[in-house]
Amino acid sequence: MRRFEVVFQPGGRTVEVVEGTTLLEAASLAGVPLEGVCGGKGTCGKCEVRAKGKLSPSTSSERRALGDKLSLGARLACQARVLGRVVVEVPDASLRLGQKILREGVTRYVPLDPMVKKRFLCLSKPSLDDQRTDLERVLDALGEGRAADLNALRELPFVVRRNEFRVTAVAVDGTLVAVEGGDTSGRCFGVAFDVGTTTLVGYLLDLSTGEEVGASAAMNPQAACGDDVISRIGYLMEHEDGLERLHEGIIEALNELISELCRDYEVRPDEVYLISVVGNTCMHHLFLKLDPRNIASVPFVPVVSDPLVFKAEELGLKAHREARVVVLPNVAAYVGADIVGGILATGLWEVEAPTLLVDIGTNGEMVLSADGRMMACSAAAGPAFEGARIRHGMRGAPGAIDSVVVEGEVKFTTIGDESPRGICGSGLVDAVAEMLRVGVLEPSGRIRSPEEFEGPENLKARIVEGEGGYDFVLTEGIRITQRDVRELQLAKGAIRAGIEVLRREMEVEDGELTVLLAGAFGNYINKKSALRIGLLPPVEEGKVVPVGNAAGEGAKLVLRSRRELERAQEIAKKVRYVELSARPELMELLAEYMLF
Amino acid sequence: MRRFEVVFQPGGRTVEVVEGTTLLEAASLAGVPLEGVCGGKGTCGKCEVRAKGKLSPSTSSERRALGDKLSLGARLACQARVLGRVVVEVPDASLRLGQKILREGVTRYVPLDPMVKKRFLCLSKPSLDDQRTDLERVLDALGEGRAADLNALRELPFVVRRNEFRVTAVAVDGTLVAVEGGDTSGRCFGVAFDVGTTTLVGYLLDLSTGEEVGASAAMNPQAACGDDVISRIGYLMEHEDGLERLHEGIIEALNELISELCRDYEVRPDEVYLISVVGNTCMHHLFLKLDPRNIASVPFVPVVSDPLVFKAEELGLKAHREARVVVLPNVAAYVGADIVGGILATGLWEVEAPTLLVDIGTNGEMVLSADGRMMACSAAAGPAFEGARIRHGMRGAPGAIDSVVVEGEVKFTTIGDESPRGICGSGLVDAVAEMLRVGVLEPSGRIRSPEEFEGPENLKARIVEGEGGYDFVLTEGIRITQRDVRELQLAKGAIRAGIEVLRREMEVEDGELTVLLAGAFGNYINKKSALRIGLLPPVEEGKVVPVGNAAGEGAKLVLRSRRELERAQEIAKKVRYVELSARPELMELLAEYMLF
Repeated sequence: MRRFEVVFQPGGRTVEVVEGTTLLEAASLAGVPLEGVCGGKGTCGKCEVRAKGKLSPSTSSERRALGDKLSLGARLACQARVLGRVVVEVPDASLRLGQKILREGVTRYVPLDPMVKKRFLCLSKPSLDDQRTDLERVLDALGEGRAADLNALRELPFVVRRNEFRVTAVAVDGTLVAVEGGDTSGRCFGVAFDVGTTTLVGYLLDLSTGEEVGASAAMNPQAACGDDVISRIGYLMEHEDGLERLHEGIIEALNELISELCRDYEVRPDEVYLISVVGNTCMHHLFLKLDPRNIASVPFVPVVSDPLVFKAEELGLKAHREARVVVLPNVAAYVGADIVGGILATGLWEVEAPTLLVDIGTNGEMVLSADGRMMACSAAAGPAFEGARIRHGMRGAPGAIDSVVVEGEVKFTTIGDESPRGICGSGLVDAVAEMLRVGVLEPSGRIRSPEEFEGPENLKARIVEGEGGYDFVLTEGIRITQRDVRELQLAKGAIRAGIEVLRREMEVEDGELTVLLAGAFGNYINKKSALRIGLLPPVEEGKVVPVGNAAGEGAKLVLRSRRELERAQEIAKKVRYVELSARPELMELLAEYMLF
Repeated sequence: MRRFEVVFQPGGRTVEVVEGTTLLEAASLAGVPLEGVCGGKGTCGKCEVRAKGKLSPSTSSERRALGDKLSLGARLACQARVLGRVVVEVPDASLRLGQKILREGVTRYVPLDPMVKKRFLCLSKPSLDDQRTDLERVLDALGEGRAADLNALRELPFVVRRNEFRVTAVAVDGTLVAVEGGDTSGRCFGVAFDVGTTTLVGYLLDLSTGEEVGASAAMNPQAACGDDVISRIGYLMEHEDGLERLHEGIIEALNELISELCRDYEVRPDEVYLISVVGNTCMHHLFLKLDPRNIASVPFVPVVSDPLVFKAEELGLKAHREARVVVLPNVAAYVGADIVGGILATGLWEVEAPTLLVDIGTNGEMVLSADGRMMACSAAAGPAFEGARIRHGMRGAPGAIDSVVVEGEVKFTTIGDESPRGICGSGLVDAVAEMLRVGVLEPSGRIRSPEEFEGPENLKARIVEGEGGYDFVLTEGIRITQRDVRELQLAKGAIRAGIEVLRREMEVEDGELTVLLAGAFGNYINKKSALRIGLLPPVEEGKVVPVGNAAGEGAKLVLRSRRELERAQEIAKKVRYVELSARPELMELLAEYMLF
């Protein structure tokens, strides 16, 4: 097959691809973070670029999305295929700009007892009276274990003799995985990964102290193949090498994070002996190159949920060759290892009062813990909270309106204090809550006409005619449409219905609940607004607690103590999963909780 | 580097090698079994060939060994290096002809319980009421285990669904290693390898019945790098990539055996799920690519002795990708996994009467078991019993004199009833025993002059002058020299001294002993002769029992029952190793037992 060069401007990143590759895929290969909300279907129009060079003819999707702009060189990157050398200009609006990444969260203290241990050993030298093998000599001094990795055995005789029998042994649960010359016991690192659908975060931990050395984040390059897990699965079902590509994309990006963390904090990649991974079940599968397609259709069956341990080499991760990669267990197709990590970090399984953990994204995952039992479910909320399918929606990137308040006039803040480019999830919830409070919205979710609205004139003037109803103008060029409100109602109705199913099943009263909000959305959302629109059950505001990136904290705990992986498994086994789609009362609850 | 073709005649086997490769190495690559007793040092002269083409100039070793023959195109294959295209003619005498390989031996019965198990499962199909993961579904049906290999997980969702949830699970000690469509439970095979210094034997076992399907043997291609373990270690210390090459040579040859066994018995290589390996400690190390150099010098320290389990893929063995390779434990540098296999097969650890297991090769290994204790040692016997350093010595190949008796006249048999080409170990022991009996030899080992000899004239006529004493002519062109007798005395003295150390240490009387003779030499040797020359302690002939290839039988036991690997480990730990070279009484014993 012929290969052609594709150059991305501004920046000039260049990549060589085979004939027929889409510009979106080329961008992903070049590391240019193009938007791709619809999974390359040509429906969202967010990946608009200008391209010069030999490309496939425009598709009907492009004509629909771009209209006249086509003649000016505009193309949808997911539709246009490379047939020769191409230069692509990427407008800012099509770039996923540096999103705000939530790195830290609440966590438990655990005594330091990592799965990997280093110990400096001054070995006695062999003699005719002490003919123990090199391995016995090391393991006897170590006082544990009987096994060794092949590579450790292969280097063993050289390392011990070159270093006068003064070596540092690296052991994983009693298996010798490496021997290093001299005393390197202070240099033992681990990386915890939170593999999100959108964002990858890596945390570098010093395993000799348990402390976090630093963190780094990157976009999940799979985003070019669809914004949510369902589009990713769609992508892999449509492409013969789809699984391979999605998997390799993740591995490459994680390797990039490892090397970035190592560079920034002066650690050698071969000093990283332990890696832990959390992610939703689909990301978990793609990370391991397990086909996730059966997650996407009834009856939603993952390949595996148990905790897994592999070698870095097996997965192509560029840490120490014999480093262990620990993957936290999943609960079900839509309650993944990230939630298990969250339970682990928040101590949810051992709370005394009834406590609800909610993680809201494209899916909302809920876990209710009470009386020593835990129950979980997942609701397909749709991507409204992430800014998709919202007229002026965007992710939580610079320029996104992230909070709205009506105090006489409409006031808002934007991320990075930039001029407003759109509205993100927390801004949307605020806006709708305020519209409700001041009477722009009916409890049914209908935006009142200027005539019906009984408030002050300045607000009335913001109500303008839109498609299928009225819009509420936040600022010039950014408005909340009737349709946006309906999207939000669907999303919050789905999540609230899920909470309701758990609450009724476990016979917990609304008033008793403490609500832990996990994840970025939960961290940035205004509690009052979330309560006002009924996304959360009616509890006192003080009982709604953002817990940050609890999933990532869970991954770190597994690095710090080997006991935590067992605990994660106990948790995963203990959580009873409730399949919402199988519940007869679901539609009724949805209808009820869609209302404000 | 330039590469040239080397053609071996007769047969026409051709190989391309880099400039500077010796003809001996080229022969090894081409699979032509050239002799190489001295390890490529140019001293034994056994690798004589005729070569045409561009070769390096003759060395002083060649001039010494070949003299005038050099001008006729004769070369030593270990000395001549390829500088252009070469055609090599290999005389029969330089070929290791199809040696007699001892395949079977005595063994214990063990209930079939292999480490790998296959089970056909009719799984219930997933539903909203039964959302267990694919892995849980399989493991629940299997009733054991919680873990799975990555490759098994990767194929799992496809295999179960393509086969309507009727699959065969392959599990190794509770870990799922593969899933196959339909019922393949009757197709589960294992290969046991006896990796000898000279010979490799592979046994194909049906693990669904425990029965041996067939066996196959090949020369150890490392033989081109030296006949005994010390020359092999010398080779690897002199060549930068020596370890790599010795290791790869073994792996290739074992793969050849697997594919030969599979072809002959209609088994697919990916139906081989388990491989067990025995060998002496050096072969054990070379098989695993562990550097064995510290075995060769004081204080003789191996890298590892514990039993090991790896995946076939890790070692490059071409069986099922996830097949397990089980390596039996060693006792010490010169009491290897082959001896542990022999103890396992013969039940030596549980005998009631004092019993001695002896395996004689270049090294003699002895294990004495009495009162529930076991003690072992190894004596460097030298290669006399294998035909090396003996004027007309040869291995046990067609044309080798393998038994000698003097009944009026000297009578002998040869292997394959061919005309005599030389004498092998059992023939040598017979010959010397008979020479002793009829008085040609003094008990001191001196061959009497014809004048001193008091026997019949026909025998007297066979005593002729030789270098440094007299020779005894067996048949035309084949004689036992005074020096041959001295070599044999050294060899048997070393072994007998070793036995003596064990016997005294364990306070066992000669008369109580039962002697098990393991290995080829022990199988073919004439017991009476062995007792007469004092190779074995004085016991009744009926108490000397050949046990055949006990090492190979031990490897088969480990395939048949997972309990046996643990037992092998218990055995290896239980055997107390006695380092002969550290014994002050050794020289005295040697002097004593060198006499007949």
